[in-house]
Amino acid sequence: MSDDAPRGQETYAITPPVRDYRPRHFLLEVAGKTATITLNRPERKNPLTFQSYAELRDLFRALQFDDDVKTVVVTGAGGNFCSGGDVFEIIEPLLSRDMPGLLQFTRMTGELVKAMRACPQPIVAAIDGICVGAGAIIAMASDLRVGTARAKVAFLFNKVGLAGCDMGACAILPRIIGQGRASELLYTGRVMKGDEAERWGFFNRLVEPEAVLVEATVLANELSAGPTFANAMTKRMLHMEWDMSVDQAIEAEAMAQAVCMKTEDYRRAFEAFASKQTPVFKGD
Amino acid sequence: MSDDAPRGQETYAITPPVRDYRPRHFLLEVAGKTATITLNRPERKNPLTFQSYAELRDLFRALQFDDDVKTVVVTGAGGNFCSGGDVFEIIEPLLSRDMPGLLQFTRMTGELVKAMRACPQPIVAAIDGICVGAGAIIAMASDLRVGTARAKVAFLFNKVGLAGCDMGACAILPRIIGQGRASELLYTGRVMKGDEAERWGFFNRLVEPEAVLVEATVLANELSAGPTFANAMTKRMLHMEWDMSVDQAIEAEAMAQAVCMKTEDYRRAFEAFASKQTPVFKGD
Amino acid sequence: MSDDAPRGQETYAITPPVRDYRPRHFLLEVAGKTATITLNRPERKNPLTFQSYAELRDLFRALQFDDDVKTVVVTGAGGNFCSGGDVFEIIEPLLSRDMPGLLQFTRMTGELVKAMRACPQPIVAAIDGICVGAGAIIAMASDLRVGTARAKVAFLFNKVGLAGCDMGACAILPRIIGQGRASELLYTGRVMKGDEAERWGFFNRLVEPEAVLVEATVLANELSAGPTFANAMTKRMLHMEWDMSVDQAIEAEAMAQAVCMKTEDYRRAFEAFASKQTPVFKGD
Repeated sequence: MSDDAPRGQETYAITPPVRDYRPRHFLLEVAGKTATITLNRPERKNPLTFQSYAELRDLFRALQFDDDVKTVVVTGAGGNFCSGGDVFEIIEPLLSRDMPGLLQFTRMTGELVKAMRACPQPIVAAIDGICVGAGAIIAMASDLRVGTARAKVAFLFNKVGLAGCDMGACAILPRIIGQGRASELLYTGRVMKGDEAERWGFFNRLVEPEAVLVEATVLANELSAGPTFANAMTKRMLHMEWDMSVDQAIEAEAMAQAVCMKTEDYRRAFEAFASKQTPVFKGD
Repeated sequence: MSDDAPRGQETYAITPPVRDYRPRHFLLEVAGKTATITLNRPERKNPLTFQSYAELRDLFRALQFDDDVKTVVVTGAGGNFCSGGDVFEIIEPLLSRDMPGLLQFTRMTGELVKAMRACPQPIVAAIDGICVGAGAIIAMASDLRVGTARAKVAFLFNKVGLAGCDMGACAILPRIIGQGRASELLYTGRVMKGDEAERWGFFNRLVEPEAVLVEATVLANELSAGPTFANAMTKRMLHMEWDMSVDQAIEAEAMAQAVCMKTEDYRRAFEAFASKQTPVFKGD
Repeated sequence: MSDDAPRGQETYAITPPVRDYRPRHFLLEVAGKTATITLNRPERKNPLTFQSYAELRDLFRALQFDDDVKTVVVTGAGGNFCSGGDVFEIIEPLLSRDMPGLLQFTRMTGELVKAMRACPQPIVAAIDGICVGAGAIIAMASDLRVGTARAKVAFLFNKVGLAGCDMGACAILPRIIGQGRASELLYTGRVMKGDEAERWGFFNRLVEPEAVLVEATVLANELSAGPTFANAMTKRMLHMEWDMSVDQAIEAEAMAQAVCMKTEDYRRAFEAFASKQTPVFKGD
C-alpha cells in the first residue's frame, strides 16, 4: 500500500472483516468486541510513515463497515505513544514534492482523522511517553484519552517550520482544552505535560505507566459491553452537531434518540431494571 | 395537559402572567422578579413524567412573554435535583410506541430545552443530590449552576440503552466542560461528582447542601436587580452566536449593544456613577 | 483621528511601516520583530477613548500589511492593563447619540477586535492589575495571555447597564473558559481573579507583577523567532475554522499545511535537524 495508490479504491478493497485483517505497519488485535491498534516501531518511538498513515486510514475506513468491532484502543509499543511523522521517511521526501504531491499527502493524513471521526466505534487512546506531531493528532482525534503523568504531548508542527493547522488541530484541540490553551500549544509547539493534560481535559484520567493499556482496555471493553448501537449514534451526533445551532442540534437529537428507542437494547435495559437485574446489551 | 395535545396551541393558550400560573406537576413561586420552580416528588427524587415535561415546556414558553419575571431558579425538593424520566411512567410506555409516537416524545423534551434557551430570563439551577438523565439535561440547559459536593450528575442515557444525544447534550455539554470530558460522560453515563463538576466548569460554584437554594436565589435576585433588558440580550446572543463566525458574532453584538445603549438603565448607570451612587436598574 | 472619520479610508491611509508609526494615544515600540503597544494613561488605569479605540483599530489594520512585525505584545502602564471605556469620555457622550451614532461606535469597537483577529501576528497580552470592560475584551481578543495573581479581569458591561454581548464576548469568551463560566462573568460582571483566570484557561500562565511584561515579551520574541509564515497561517485557521464542520476544517488544513510545506522555513527545519543543529527560521 502506498500513498500514491489511486484514492477511492481502498474503501472497497478491504472486504474481509477487520478481525481477519493483517496490517503490515502496526499491530492489530481483536479481543471480544474491542480492537487494539499498537504502533510498533518502539526503537524509534513509533513514528509514522507514508505507508503506516495510509494503512491506518484504511483500517479506520474498514471499521466503518465492521459490525463485530464495537470499540477501538490505540496505543504505542515500548513506553511511547507515537513520535509523529518520521523525519527521513516523511519530512525529507516531502521537500521535493510539488504542490499536488504535497496536497496528496496532507489530504491523506486528514483522511485518517476523518475516518477516525466517521467510524462508529468510540476510540480510546492509551498514551504514555512521547506523543508528538501526528501522534498528538491521533490522540486528539480519539474520543477518550487515558494518559500518564510522564506523557509528553506536543503539537510540535511549528518546531519543524510548519503551521499548527494540521489534520484538524485548529478546530478540534480548542474544543477539548479551550481556545487559549490550544493557541499556546499550536503557536509554540511546547510539550503539554501529563498533569496539564488531565487538568485541561485532554486526558480523561491519569494512571500509572504500567496500567495505561489495561485501563484503556477496561474502559473500551466497558463501552463494547454497552448499548453499542446507541454509542455509535452518540459518536455520530458529537461529530454532526459540531457546527449546528443549538436548536438544530436539539431537533437532530430528537430524531436520533427516537431511532435508539426502537432498539432491543432499550427494551433490555427496561426489562432488566424491572426485574432488578443488570442489563446485558447486544448492540441491536 | 398531555403530551398528546396538539402542538402549537400551548404558546397562545397560556395568557395569564406566570405569577398567576398554578402548575400541577411542580411548585412555582414568584418572589419579587425571581420565579422558583421546584420539582416536587421527593419520595422518588423528583422524576419527570410526560405531564411534568410538557408543563415545564409550557411554563418556559410562557416565560418568554412574561415581563414581570426576570430570572428563574430551578431546584428539586428533599435534597435531590431530579432523577430524570420515570422508569415506569416514561421508559416503559415508550417501548410500545411507534416511530411517530417516539418522535413526538423526543421532540417534546427537546422543546423544553429550546424553551429554556429561548426565554429571556437567565436560569439558575440549584443542584444537590441526584441530578441524572433529563435532570442533568435541565441543569445543563440552565445558564448558571450552583451545586454541592455531594451532588451526582449523570447523563446516564446509555445505562438505559440509549444514546448520549438527548435534548441537545452532544452540542451543549462539550461547550461547558470540553469535548473530551463530555464524551466520557455521554459514552459511559458515569457520575460527574460535585468537585469534578466545579473543576470542569459545570458548576459555577460549590456550596453546602443547606445553602444551595439560598445561594442560587441570592444570585438570581442579583440578576433580577440588574439591567434585565441587557441580561436578556446577553442570553439571546449567547444562543445566537453559538454557530456564528467570529466576525458575524462581532457584527451581531455591535447591533445588540447599540440597542442596549438606548435603554434607561444605561443612563441610570452613568448618572449613578457621576453622583457616586449605586445604580438602581429597572429593566427598561 | 476621530471616530467620525469616514469608514474604509483608514486601511489605505496608513502606508508607512508600523515601525515608523507614531501613535498619539498609546505607546508603540518595535524591537526586533516584536511590536509592543502600551496603553499609557496610568493615572486613570489606562482607559480607552473614542480616539484611542480608533487608533488601536487602525494600528491592527496596518499590522495586517506589515511584514516586519511578526508578533505583538499589548500591555498597560503603571501596574494596570486597562480600565475600559472612559466614563466621561465615552459613556456620557454616547447617551446623547442617536441610533446611527451608537452603531457607529459599537461597530468601530467591533472593528478593533476584527482587526486583532485578522492581522497575521499572534498577540500576547501582558495583564496586571485592572483589566475591565473593553480592557477585558482586548485581553480576550489576544491570542495568548500572561497574567498575574493580583490581576482583576471583569467583563463588567452589565454594571453599566449594558449587555455582556460586547465586541464578540458572547462568542469568544465561552470558547476560552467554557460556556458556564463565561455566562457567569457576562451576566454578573464580576471579577475573575488571577488564579481563576489561570485555572479556567484565560491566562496561559501566572507570573509575578514585575515579570509580566518581560515574560510576555520573551514569549512574543520566541514566536517572532519561529516560522512566522506558518504562525500566521495557524492564526488564520484558528479564526476561519471557528464555525466549520470537522470535515471542512480538516480539508482546509490540508490545503493550508501544504502551502506551508513550500516555505523555506520547512526546509531549514529539516536541514537543521539532519545536521543536529537548531533551525534558524526566517519567516519565508
